[in-house]
Amino acid sequence: MNLDSAGLLILTRQQCLELLSLTPVGRIVFTDRALPSVQPVNFLLDGQSIVIRTASASKLAAATRDAVVAFEADDIDVTTRTGWSVTAVGHATAVTQPHQIQRLATLPLIRWAPGGQDHYIMIHTEQISGRRLT
Amino acid sequence: MNLDSAGLLILTRQQCLELLSLTPVGRIVFTDRALPSVQPVNFLLDGQSIVIRTASASKLAAATRDAVVAFEADDIDVTTRTGWSVTAVGHATAVTQPHQIQRLATLPLIRWAPGGQDHYIMIHTEQISGRRLT
Repeated sequence: MNLDSAGLLILTRQQCLELLSLTPVGRIVFTDRALPSVQPVNFLLDGQSIVIRTASASKLAAATRDAVVAFEADDIDVTTRTGWSVTAVGHATAVTQPHQIQRLATLPLIRWAPGGQDHYIMIHTEQISGRRLT
Repeated sequence: MNLDSAGLLILTRQQCLELLSLTPVGRIVFTDRALPSVQPVNFLLDGQSIVIRTASASKLAAATRDAVVAFEADDIDVTTRTGWSVTAVGHATAVTQPHQIQRLATLPLIRWAPGGQDHYIMIHTEQISGRRLT
């Protein structure tokens, strides 16, 4: 067991990606007008990248064009006070290549929130870390 | 019903604070070595401020001393695809006044993660916004 300085179990990159692949909702963290911003989104793991759909006119689409963002997902049981969290940091890009959009459109990813979903954001998980609270 | 541009129900400040007061776990968003960082924490709402306990030697304690941070909590049902989220933005301060530490120590706030909890972070909810997905 590999514990961090706070006594939490350190998850491997592979474990982190497995947890993300099983989780439908996470939170994207970005900067909006120089202030930290965070927004829950449903997402899909595509290989080692996180894919999010939104409206091209959205604040999220504007704020994440070629920005470094963080992405977090967790599952914490408030009764047993156990659970896990995974955080990825990487470049977010707007998907603009038609063949890439066509491929992503075949994935089972439909935006839960109302409003448009014509815009795909891809986050490349350059850094990924996870912890388990046992 | 007051909807935002994405079609989500806009919550009032009072509704946001009520939801935070009923929720034990949220995520603090800060900057760590110029990169966006996010960490789940259990917390308590003290008036209109968010209180978090951690170890004084932690990365979180260091990164949130007199910093502007965001704080997010949500509850999203993945089956019905409904739920809410609340985001606060404000200055985080380390609580250093002995009388204030003494008062906070009487609150029912014990850190769930192992490791020290000798340090209190207080986030003043200067901006708060919430949405409900129905």
